[in-house]
Amino acid sequence: MLGQMQSQPLLISNLIVHAERHHGATDIVSRRVEGDIHRTNWREVARRSRQVANALDALALGFGDRVATLAWNGYRHLELYFGVSGTGRVLHTLNPRLHPEQLVWIVNHAEDKALCFDMSFLPLVKAVWSKCPTVKHWIALCDASALPADSGIPGLQSYEAWIGAQKDSYAWPEFDENTASSMCYTSGTTGNPKAALYSHRSTTLHAYGAAMPDAMGCSARDSILPVVPMFHVNAWGLPYSAAAVGCKLVFPGPALDGKSVYELIEAEGVTMAAGVPTVWQMLLAHLQQNQLKFSTLKRTVIGGSACPPAMISAFNDLYGVDVLHAWGMTEMSPLGTVCTLKNAQLALPGDEQLKVRLKQGRTIFGVDMKIVNEAGDELPWDGKSYGDLLVRGPWIIASYFKGEGGDPLRYDAQGHGWFPTGDVATIDADGFMQITDRSKDVIKSGGEWISSIDVENIAMAHPAVAMAACIGMKHPKWDERPIVVVVKKPGAEVTREELLKFYEGRIAKWQVPDDVVFVDAIPLGATGKMQKMVLRQQLHDYVLPGV
Amino acid sequence: MLGQMQSQPLLISNLIVHAERHHGATDIVSRRVEGDIHRTNWREVARRSRQVANALDALALGFGDRVATLAWNGYRHLELYFGVSGTGRVLHTLNPRLHPEQLVWIVNHAEDKALCFDMSFLPLVKAVWSKCPTVKHWIALCDASALPADSGIPGLQSYEAWIGAQKDSYAWPEFDENTASSMCYTSGTTGNPKAALYSHRSTTLHAYGAAMPDAMGCSARDSILPVVPMFHVNAWGLPYSAAAVGCKLVFPGPALDGKSVYELIEAEGVTMAAGVPTVWQMLLAHLQQNQLKFSTLKRTVIGGSACPPAMISAFNDLYGVDVLHAWGMTEMSPLGTVCTLKNAQLALPGDEQLKVRLKQGRTIFGVDMKIVNEAGDELPWDGKSYGDLLVRGPWIIASYFKGEGGDPLRYDAQGHGWFPTGDVATIDADGFMQITDRSKDVIKSGGEWISSIDVENIAMAHPAVAMAACIGMKHPKWDERPIVVVVKKPGAEVTREELLKFYEGRIAKWQVPDDVVFVDAIPLGATGKMQKMVLRQQLHDYVLPGV
Ligand SMILES: Nc1ncnc2c1ncn2[C@@H]1O[C@H](COP(=O)(O)O)[C@@H](O)[C@H]1O
Repeated sequence: MLGQMQSQPLLISNLIVHAERHHGATDIVSRRVEGDIHRTNWREVARRSRQVANALDALALGFGDRVATLAWNGYRHLELYFGVSGTGRVLHTLNPRLHPEQLVWIVNHAEDKALCFDMSFLPLVKAVWSKCPTVKHWIALCDASALPADSGIPGLQSYEAWIGAQKDSYAWPEFDENTASSMCYTSGTTGNPKAALYSHRSTTLHAYGAAMPDAMGCSARDSILPVVPMFHVNAWGLPYSAAAVGCKLVFPGPALDGKSVYELIEAEGVTMAAGVPTVWQMLLAHLQQNQLKFSTLKRTVIGGSACPPAMISAFNDLYGVDVLHAWGMTEMSPLGTVCTLKNAQLALPGDEQLKVRLKQGRTIFGVDMKIVNEAGDELPWDGKSYGDLLVRGPWIIASYFKGEGGDPLRYDAQGHGWFPTGDVATIDADGFMQITDRSKDVIKSGGEWISSIDVENIAMAHPAVAMAACIGMKHPKWDERPIVVVVKKPGAEVTREELLKFYEGRIAKWQVPDDVVFVDAIPLGATGKMQKMVLRQQLHDYVLPGV
Repeated sequence: MLGQMQSQPLLISNLIVHAERHHGATDIVSRRVEGDIHRTNWREVARRSRQVANALDALALGFGDRVATLAWNGYRHLELYFGVSGTGRVLHTLNPRLHPEQLVWIVNHAEDKALCFDMSFLPLVKAVWSKCPTVKHWIALCDASALPADSGIPGLQSYEAWIGAQKDSYAWPEFDENTASSMCYTSGTTGNPKAALYSHRSTTLHAYGAAMPDAMGCSARDSILPVVPMFHVNAWGLPYSAAAVGCKLVFPGPALDGKSVYELIEAEGVTMAAGVPTVWQMLLAHLQQNQLKFSTLKRTVIGGSACPPAMISAFNDLYGVDVLHAWGMTEMSPLGTVCTLKNAQLALPGDEQLKVRLKQGRTIFGVDMKIVNEAGDELPWDGKSYGDLLVRGPWIIASYFKGEGGDPLRYDAQGHGWFPTGDVATIDADGFMQITDRSKDVIKSGGEWISSIDVENIAMAHPAVAMAACIGMKHPKWDERPIVVVVKKPGAEVTREELLKFYEGRIAKWQVPDDVVFVDAIPLGATGKMQKMVLRQQLHDYVLPGV
């Protein structure tokens, strides 16, 4: 027997319709590529996203066709989020930090039909357009007057002229909620990048899940600053959650330095921000150097890579900002866990609470997780046993676009497919997960595993250390031994011996790295994560002490 | 093109699996019919709900068969919520406050196959069982030892013996998420009651929506007391939202008096409570009489009927408790709107904020609403125009069980069906809805409408008034004129003239009631709402002054 409820597909167009009807006057503020601050609101974004929809129809793009963006966080990008997906086309956010060759590969693999780009990426587009034969339409996110006469890019149009020619009424079509809505390629450290192909259903469910009080806790009372780029897993889904709750949105554009981010937070009364640790590092440095405080910021969601404990304490103790440690991945839309305490833990002493808050946290309802050993057996949730972390849920991929890489899932006895995250983790009795490593980064020393993240976090707690990467080096007796590669803070000093001594009492003796290597910079990937593969290549002549 | 996300139906069994795996140790506390306080946790509730599932299979009840409950809020009722729906049967919560004849009618209409009841309802069950031929299984929610030997009810079993005989492993079946999961009959002031038939999908989406920060804001940090009965629209969906977020739950059982509720709040560190105004009235009176304060309660959700302004102020000013005014109905699962401020409103002065907070609030994403005139045209959102309130969304009914009453929806130009709520409301430019009346209660005086709720709220603000009902009386010239029927607080005094004078300056002159009628009690329906129909009958000999 079926229930007798209204059948209404979960479509992304519902989000923008809701935001317009119920939160039309709420601000959307953007620092633009042009450098100025631009103000609009949900009503205008909705209106212009309907112009985008008409403009796409006018290009005669088919249902399911990919429309790519190469853009920073801003209102035009937001309009494309709703305009493209709302019509049944697929929004494909490109990561401008990728190598041009990789970008070309991705555009061709996705068979993008149109590409919308910020003017700051004009040189990049000039360099690649001729290698992207599927792209028939090039649109620059600017006014008609800002368009260069001689770009050489065939048929280049300005976004404002393109949508300006369209009427602003549009009836969003209704279709199967499992229709593809957007796509995002993984950073893919080995092999070619693979794409997650999200659906309207998965995006809507994630929008609910991510806004829940124990996840990012988004509400109409908030002024939210997504520092995490809209080309990086849809800014963690914040544009969608924001439309669902009708909060104020503040977009930083390309200016992610500490000063610009700080000024935006203060000027726009930002209450919540979200981003990767490297951005917060810059922000904290700016605050410290200039003895500043926050007047409205209440919490910040930090994820994308492990949040160093020192960062959580700094935000908390010095600035009264609650850090929510979050974990997820492109294949998960991306949110899997967020670290917020449970009722019973609120009675714990502060340092006990901090221990919990360092973990990556608990799953949001919708996501289930487990850790397994090499045989695939589920391991106990004791906070000690570690194993491969597997996940399942309606906003987690079943397979990659075009079936690349085959079926990634591992099936349990009930036939449920679990996605292997590639992370190694522990889960404690309260369901708090802690990543100990990427499975490919874990260091195997004498049959035991050493967490590279633990080793890095200790180095990061040293006042002279700006960034640290722990990697395993081949060792004749122990198989592998850890070393720590360190970037010092400008002007700060610390010797190899001092840093090794710093590990004493903070970690088991056999886990202390065998060596410290000082470098000027650690290679970062397009999403701001340390690229240990590249680092290993750079150190290919390195020999462990005593070997 | 379809997305490539995991396909996982939204099933109620996922909720209890999540609560067990990720929040197993979190407390579920119940004041029992037996009078004592019982403690269990999500793990145990999940385990026993699997025993319920096995026990239902053993009875050979079919998929979609209705299992009725006649029970207060407590852990056994919670186990039935998941055990019954999880197996694909339909949980039918009966309202024990209904007249026995009505109860019999409903059980027969629903064709309930089994009925589980609290021992406090044994006399009621004894009186009705022989008139309920579809019910093959009678289960008393108690220990085997508490079972009366001579109930006369055929095959009566105790719940503990019934589930105790079953193993606690069970593989929850997977099925279409649109499958019926539970049902609830409306109070139906005219004609026979009609039932809303919820689905797994609608229940799950509502569980997300209701837990959002701008709705009830449920989190694992909370200890939540649903005072609203589990037989009244599933306690506003709190059992489901609670499982989704893994909060502590505190059930009051049958003891809804001020003292019992207060003691439970204090003993169990309740942070959030939810219920209808009448319960809070009793609680506030208890606090005032005994000069008590709350030590943990932070917010309370008040809905089901209009929350008197005086109550919002009392909670806020005297006890520091945030009142969330909520609106919904059986046909809406039930949540439609909750009143929480927007970012831009946080800068308003206190009294301006209070004005907003008196309204029934903004829609939760998923629900859309509009007000229309008699021709069905949408009215402006200006906070003044009032009209019939229509709603649509995935947790709102499309039709009643067995098609009773035909197709209730009204269709717009795009073919979207809207459910007419029977409420008359305004909506302001910020999307805040305010109920001015039930359409059948609105008073039509000289071509203009008078809101009975406005008239009642003013009387309720008078210190001597415990309860007030405004009804329209036939008038030869004006068509109808309002009178206010008042119950005085014990020991308090106020005259007709004093009360009429109290209206001066608080409402337009022509809206001031023509008369005050003092009574000992105002009739309340099974869900605690004033029954104006009955009141009108009681006053059928009444004549307006000067007529
Ligand atoms: N906060 C509220 N203010 C005024 N009326 C309310 C409120 N909440 C619920 N109601 C009324 O209760 C009706 C639903 O009744 P029920 O289906 O029994 O829950 C609504 O249509 C409203 O008339």
